[in-house]
Amino acid sequence: MSQSIAIAVVGATGTVGETIVQILEERDFPVGDLHLLASLESAGHSVPFRGKNVRVREVETFDFSKVRLAFFAAGPAVSRSHAEKAAAAGCSVIDLSGELSVERAPNVVPEINAQLLTAQGASPHLISSPSASATAVALVLAPLRSLLDLRQVAVTACLAVSAQGREGVSELARQTTELLNVRPLETRFFDRQMAFNVLAQVGKPDESGHLPLERRLVQELRELLSLPSLKVAASCIQVPVFFGDSFTVSLQASAPINLDAVNAALEAAQGIELVDAGDYPTPVGDAVGQDVVYVGRVRAGIDDPEQLNLWFTSDNVRKGAALNAVQVGELLIKDYV
Amino acid sequence: MSQSIAIAVVGATGTVGETIVQILEERDFPVGDLHLLASLESAGHSVPFRGKNVRVREVETFDFSKVRLAFFAAGPAVSRSHAEKAAAAGCSVIDLSGELSVERAPNVVPEINAQLLTAQGASPHLISSPSASATAVALVLAPLRSLLDLRQVAVTACLAVSAQGREGVSELARQTTELLNVRPLETRFFDRQMAFNVLAQVGKPDESGHLPLERRLVQELRELLSLPSLKVAASCIQVPVFFGDSFTVSLQASAPINLDAVNAALEAAQGIELVDAGDYPTPVGDAVGQDVVYVGRVRAGIDDPEQLNLWFTSDNVRKGAALNAVQVGELLIKDYV
Repeated sequence: MSQSIAIAVVGATGTVGETIVQILEERDFPVGDLHLLASLESAGHSVPFRGKNVRVREVETFDFSKVRLAFFAAGPAVSRSHAEKAAAAGCSVIDLSGELSVERAPNVVPEINAQLLTAQGASPHLISSPSASATAVALVLAPLRSLLDLRQVAVTACLAVSAQGREGVSELARQTTELLNVRPLETRFFDRQMAFNVLAQVGKPDESGHLPLERRLVQELRELLSLPSLKVAASCIQVPVFFGDSFTVSLQASAPINLDAVNAALEAAQGIELVDAGDYPTPVGDAVGQDVVYVGRVRAGIDDPEQLNLWFTSDNVRKGAALNAVQVGELLIKDYV
Repeated sequence: MSQSIAIAVVGATGTVGETIVQILEERDFPVGDLHLLASLESAGHSVPFRGKNVRVREVETFDFSKVRLAFFAAGPAVSRSHAEKAAAAGCSVIDLSGELSVERAPNVVPEINAQLLTAQGASPHLISSPSASATAVALVLAPLRSLLDLRQVAVTACLAVSAQGREGVSELARQTTELLNVRPLETRFFDRQMAFNVLAQVGKPDESGHLPLERRLVQELRELLSLPSLKVAASCIQVPVFFGDSFTVSLQASAPINLDAVNAALEAAQGIELVDAGDYPTPVGDAVGQDVVYVGRVRAGIDDPEQLNLWFTSDNVRKGAALNAVQVGELLIKDYV
């Protein structure tokens, strides 16, 4: 590619934002001017890119007409305030906050529904990159859609503390050290002991008892699979793992499932890697730092041939968030360069 | 109670066996002679009981006609070799191995199906105490049986490393210390890094991909709930937690679920404690060392009123195993004392 384009990364000092910058470099994204943006408190830091340290500036005062493409990885409030403004200034937006409406900014996982980008017409585009959980689950279920008449899905998502950003990571490390040194545990970032424990929820439940993350997973999964009325039971729990989400999924179909066909479809699919039967992937051993979702333990139900059970694991920061956003960006810039 | 009876605890040096001895003391079980038994390699150790150290002897050479009641907590091989022999010698057996057939030794959780003990007729009795997972799940689902027409259950059991006995516990501690000290990790007991990781399986899967623990959970749950054809999807995963299993469960009923009635039934049930809505229990914070299963996050499905989702946590060694066995013992000895 001979041309390069001006890019902004909003939330550049966060775990996902920093990984986006790193992946832009790794994948030789045709970055011209790179504008790294963050809230006032993080402005002034710098992030390495192509051997230089790029200074992070404040998003509030940034003029988005200077860039053609912006990644928003700074959380809901920043996306609410700035994403539409950026689009109005002619800048295409890839938003990772889940804050924009489906009508305005459809969720895209390139391996599943890249066609939505062309359907959106002329730039500037407004695209959502789904939650890490929805990205992983959808990548594994999409190749099975044509094989199974999916009636129901139950997902338990065991989320890494990096879902909570750097503070989650450092709090798990701190708590673990305190406990191993037999010092009294003081909880700070999490509301409970996180080390050697499992928390029943990630974020605060609404009146019906559902977490925002659970609702987002269900909605985005239905959208990505084009199955708007799919029944999904979702539980997002927090496990003492730094990076890498893992998932148990149980599917109900309306007819006996052909396991060979399921394995063949998973084997052939983009963005996932099927681990040999008998072996199984783990977050630390397989998923972390990788560009695919690792799938294993593919099995029918016990006495239920219409049931399919799976386990899979994905790097929540990279594959689940930063890489997907950059992959969407790679498709978008075909219009520009 | 004026009379006391001679008791044997087989597997007395294991995590569960030692906890049985401790609970016999705590609950003032009418223990006369106490015989602590184990394999040859553990014989010679001693375990404290009522202020004295009781020496552990070899099970191979023990004469079970000396005792009226024996707890078998030493694993499948020892139960296979000695449980029937003990019963033939006139000793009632409470077996925790899952090795005896349902016909010979029904699974009993006193809060659910104590009536099976009387149905069994005269002593010696042969009773199974189910797996920790089945005990916890059954305690939570049993009070809901009469409220819901249960069509399907999906369970993800996040098992503590103590499910693997002392070696699991010390290996998680050792691995965590190595990693925090930035030393290269050598895996020993587990086949992967267990610290800060989640393993997709506990034990080895069979040809169909199911774990023995998953099959045991499904079979025991059906038996305890008297729902022999209940569809159960079970995934047992290993999390870096020392003690306390936790569970996400999603149920499908055949009609809309009345959440108030569900909460009232859980509130009234024996052996479980319902945590207030908005709050939630964790293994470390609630379950460990306690005599009940803690239940929280009771909620319907997202857009699915026929779905019920729950989270609960239980001390796998105590409530899930040792305490249940002793409670069965308390019912059995009513025949004797």
